[in-house]
Amino acid sequence: MSEVLSAAELQERLSRSPFIRFLGLVVTEADPARQCVTMTLEMRPEFERIAGSGQWHGGPVAAVIDTVGDYALVMTIGHPLPTINFRVDYLRPAVNTALTVTARVRRAGRSVGVVDVDVMDAKGTLVAIGRATYSTA
Amino acid sequence: MSEVLSAAELQERLSRSPFIRFLGLVVTEADPARQCVTMTLEMRPEFERIAGSGQWHGGPVAAVIDTVGDYALVMTIGHPLPTINFRVDYLRPAVNTALTVTARVRRAGRSVGVVDVDVMDAKGTLVAIGRATYSTA
Amino acid sequence: MSEVLSAAELQERLSRSPFIRFLGLVVTEADPARQCVTMTLEMRPEFERIAGSGQWHGGPVAAVIDTVGDYALVMTIGHPLPTINFRVDYLRPAVNTALTVTARVRRAGRSVGVVDVDVMDAKGTLVAIGRATYSTA
Amino acid sequence: MSEVLSAAELQERLSRSPFIRFLGLVVTEADPARQCVTMTLEMRPEFERIAGSGQWHGGPVAAVIDTVGDYALVMTIGHPLPTINFRVDYLRPAVNTALTVTARVRRAGRSVGVVDVDVMDAKGTLVAIGRATYSTA
Repeated sequence: MSEVLSAAELQERLSRSPFIRFLGLVVTEADPARQCVTMTLEMRPEFERIAGSGQWHGGPVAAVIDTVGDYALVMTIGHPLPTINFRVDYLRPAVNTALTVTARVRRAGRSVGVVDVDVMDAKGTLVAIGRATYSTA
Repeated sequence: MSEVLSAAELQERLSRSPFIRFLGLVVTEADPARQCVTMTLEMRPEFERIAGSGQWHGGPVAAVIDTVGDYALVMTIGHPLPTINFRVDYLRPAVNTALTVTARVRRAGRSVGVVDVDVMDAKGTLVAIGRATYSTA
Repeated sequence: MSEVLSAAELQERLSRSPFIRFLGLVVTEADPARQCVTMTLEMRPEFERIAGSGQWHGGPVAAVIDTVGDYALVMTIGHPLPTINFRVDYLRPAVNTALTVTARVRRAGRSVGVVDVDVMDAKGTLVAIGRATYSTA
Repeated sequence: MSEVLSAAELQERLSRSPFIRFLGLVVTEADPARQCVTMTLEMRPEFERIAGSGQWHGGPVAAVIDTVGDYALVMTIGHPLPTINFRVDYLRPAVNTALTVTARVRRAGRSVGVVDVDVMDAKGTLVAIGRATYSTA
């Protein structure tokens, strides 16, 4: 807990991963007091569910839940943690919109960390929620 | 249930989705009697967790679980179904390997379908498992 | 949505179920504006993990997550809904304590409802969290 | 892995827990080669969803998934393990029937174990499935 990463430091760590660069995640807030990080990402053609629909496929939505959830723990632990498992619930379609993803640590234990993730569209409507468990050992 | 899609027909439906084309899924088996489909996909640079590591990021693994699980139901229902939610458990790292993904229907009800998905590396070692629920209504 | 049940009416409906009577759930708050219900329950000998430990077994904790989550939707829908699936994460042991269980609706759609549930001990420490999906069709 | 518990030894360990005694679980098979255990349990009045219905409430079904899943790892590890999290999917109502619960280890790692659990009624119809993660550290 001695080293708390800033938004810029989290962004630098994100850039080391080819897959995360492909997602295009941008850190907009890193709040160690609330154990909360927020990132945004734009739609890109490869994320589309059906050609021309503008609708996000669930795959990249799940992937950002996994990643942003991880970085809520990275902020205080300093390095990415292996995901043990996660659940994603799709609540509404996301169409022609950027996404805002907020992850909040529910428990940072010695062996396991649990994080809740909310995914919203550009209007602030909830489109998906995630709950993920990471190995902190 | 009158129309059962062949592996070639499933492949054609997969090709309609830009995101699934990006994943590069290839149908290798479609068995309506066992309600089971198998697909494979190759590593590509955008899937890498850390540059040069050859390790799959968990994001594309989660995405293929969601997609291949869906197509186990598509085989007998004829069109993709919205994912309600799913869970993925990561069991081992997948490094420098193609993946084989097998999805098996556990329940195809009138409102909800439940599918189990196993993800193996090229040696047949289990690297991740998924369980997904889709809306069949 | 026309009929919103009060805490007393929820309590009456709970009493119709032998298993819920066994759990001993008491409704302490029903807030339709926030789509949130809170219930409490006391320890009883049958809930103990190991004889003499005073520690709650995870089984009754999971059962109250399923039930209280359901009643957050019952409040506005008027009758219990079948659970499609749920996830429980155990965060800390609960020992020699009553439990307070708060369920909050994240999405009440036409076919599916999704509810988050927090379980706290008598000091307000989070001991478990649940996320459950119910059929609203 | 040196000490593998027999069905009788598992039954003795189950009896140490007041909650598991309440559930009434009986070990019918313990197969270390397949990393699989099977238990049965009878309906009892406290398990009923609605008085006089004969239908199992989901709560005890979830509780047995958690417990039997744990004992598939207990068989080779020798003592109960804390549950990190689990998911249960309800597939069909279980009415006027005993239940048979089979748990199979999917991964027994150094820090985490993952187990799949199938719950069947007396006719062998699948009524619920579970997937649970335990701390093996």
